[in-house]
Amino acid sequence: MSADFLTLAVPGVQKLSPYVTGKPIDELARELGIEPARIIKLASNENPLGPNPRVLEAIRGELSELTRYPDGSGFRLKAKLAERFGLKSEQITLGNGSNDIIDLVARCWLAPGRNAVFSAHAFAAYPLCTQAAGAESRVVPAVDYGHDLDGMLEAIDEQTAVVFIANPNNPTGTWLGAQALESFLDRVPERVLVVLDEAYIEFTEGDELPNGLNYLDRYPNLLVSRTLCKAYGLAGLRVGYSASSPQIADVLNRVRQPFNVNSLALVAACAALDDEQYLAEGRRVNRAGMAQLEQGLAELRLKWIPSRGNFLAVDLGRDAAPINAGLLREGVIVRPIAGYGMPTFLRVSIGTEQENARFLEALRVVLDQ
Amino acid sequence: MSADFLTLAVPGVQKLSPYVTGKPIDELARELGIEPARIIKLASNENPLGPNPRVLEAIRGELSELTRYPDGSGFRLKAKLAERFGLKSEQITLGNGSNDIIDLVARCWLAPGRNAVFSAHAFAAYPLCTQAAGAESRVVPAVDYGHDLDGMLEAIDEQTAVVFIANPNNPTGTWLGAQALESFLDRVPERVLVVLDEAYIEFTEGDELPNGLNYLDRYPNLLVSRTLCKAYGLAGLRVGYSASSPQIADVLNRVRQPFNVNSLALVAACAALDDEQYLAEGRRVNRAGMAQLEQGLAELRLKWIPSRGNFLAVDLGRDAAPINAGLLREGVIVRPIAGYGMPTFLRVSIGTEQENARFLEALRVVLDQ
Repeated sequence: MSADFLTLAVPGVQKLSPYVTGKPIDELARELGIEPARIIKLASNENPLGPNPRVLEAIRGELSELTRYPDGSGFRLKAKLAERFGLKSEQITLGNGSNDIIDLVARCWLAPGRNAVFSAHAFAAYPLCTQAAGAESRVVPAVDYGHDLDGMLEAIDEQTAVVFIANPNNPTGTWLGAQALESFLDRVPERVLVVLDEAYIEFTEGDELPNGLNYLDRYPNLLVSRTLCKAYGLAGLRVGYSASSPQIADVLNRVRQPFNVNSLALVAACAALDDEQYLAEGRRVNRAGMAQLEQGLAELRLKWIPSRGNFLAVDLGRDAAPINAGLLREGVIVRPIAGYGMPTFLRVSIGTEQENARFLEALRVVLDQ
Repeated sequence: MSADFLTLAVPGVQKLSPYVTGKPIDELARELGIEPARIIKLASNENPLGPNPRVLEAIRGELSELTRYPDGSGFRLKAKLAERFGLKSEQITLGNGSNDIIDLVARCWLAPGRNAVFSAHAFAAYPLCTQAAGAESRVVPAVDYGHDLDGMLEAIDEQTAVVFIANPNNPTGTWLGAQALESFLDRVPERVLVVLDEAYIEFTEGDELPNGLNYLDRYPNLLVSRTLCKAYGLAGLRVGYSASSPQIADVLNRVRQPFNVNSLALVAACAALDDEQYLAEGRRVNRAGMAQLEQGLAELRLKWIPSRGNFLAVDLGRDAAPINAGLLREGVIVRPIAGYGMPTFLRVSIGTEQENARFLEALRVVLDQ
């Protein structure tokens, strides 16, 4: 008779369901029995530009060191980030993607008896990490699918340790302006850590969205998390970071696994941060693709949520699951977001012009069936 | 007046000190103001063979997919591991190095009010992960620097959720034979998860050490953790795994970050597992280097702990810190292990013949000063 290691697990973990990832192309190819090349994936908000040649060069230059452990302190990358964004190295925490940052925050400040406040339709990592830490998730209803900041303020109580905000938010694409954000930060109790998740911020520019890094001096309880997996195109290598007060970074670094960011990711990130042109080209392709999708969706008489990310949440006006199944049969992978409380929506990542066109055509075919 | 986010952290985290990694070559080069090429590093038990060409080929073949997320399920790697070791895919959990596996175990089964039992002089990740989870570390004194299994059994009580055992152990190199291990597993309560850490197992062969995987069917409370960072030479990419009952793997996979293993690591690991020759060559170089170091240390009239890893713990018979400082000035990085309760020891990784010779010569110079 063997023991039940699910019942023996800590209470928060027992109730946890695993994060559902975008279906990999290989997996669908196996299921459909077709060539991977015949499939397009617009499911994970990946960068359609393909790899940055400067990044690949940096990776190739590091391959001879593969048997060496990464620099556990991330000295060069932190120095590069500090220089690039006017920070001090000791304000930075490196993560194996920004998911790792969010997870570290939960492990450091959440526990049974504490709670985290975040919006409905917010990134799935917030409830998962909160649950894994055994803390309570306080999910605040959204307004027009966006964050209700006043509602979130009201939800904060003595047991609230962390507030998660995403700007823009995934999977809705909704965003917060500078005034709304500042007014919120002014009113959050200073003992509550505010995680401002800017995973998609680089798809905007100038004053389109407030830059969280500019608020760090004013709000010592603010942590800005970012990733190089999206606009910088490093999803495969996993690298994210946070900027915060040095004290918050020090606490995070105590729990951080010493080699959480691999050595190819470290050099790739340094090279990516040096290349403004790749970012600019990504923004251009994203804007053009957004316009292309919006026009195509309008022609199909569909609605969507206006977005400042590299994706659109499309409202099918009915259960989206059969539409998603139809798209998969057409070899098109997008993301169902019923798990985000949006069962009539599909989230489509903005791809190349060809990919967007193929998605729109497949959607037309499936809707006509 | 800003809040104190150290005091606000969960109690286990507040008392945590960060893991001390081997000093990177770059860091010493910066400190000494010399060329990195003039420094040798025998501090992190890295594979001296250098990268496996078959692995590099696999990585190069995957670079075009860099902007894509990794396969979060690790389908191909798990299938490869299952085939290679006669397991089922659902028994396997992938980790960002085996440190990640140990951390996941702690998060799933340790919490305030529970404890973990392990030996003195055991791998630093055990106390760190236990502490981060807010649980108690029950450190059992060692016998001749090796695990005292009877003492560990006695230390287990009703609150014990996990026992960590390393075979061979790092940093001592000590090992357990099949009979001792089986007798221990027979007597551990079935509700206690036994983590058998075999990070260095591939440096032995045949019956030199018991193969933990062979015991999984007999002991449903056993988890075997392994890494491809050592003998397989993938330290820079971070990839480890565990084999256990499917239920234990299911629990771990709920807490595991969905993309904890990056996509280059996934393909590199598959290629590495296909290459028995690289492992065999690694064992040959390790055996020759071990003999070379033992002979050199004997000539210097020093003692060491017999080891089945790819490293030796050398007893200087006095405070090792000044000797370590002297070695650093000679451009030789080894690992002080005072933090492991072994202040008179230095741990030296077995390198190439040239590196071993340079270490021995530098040690002679420093001891003569």
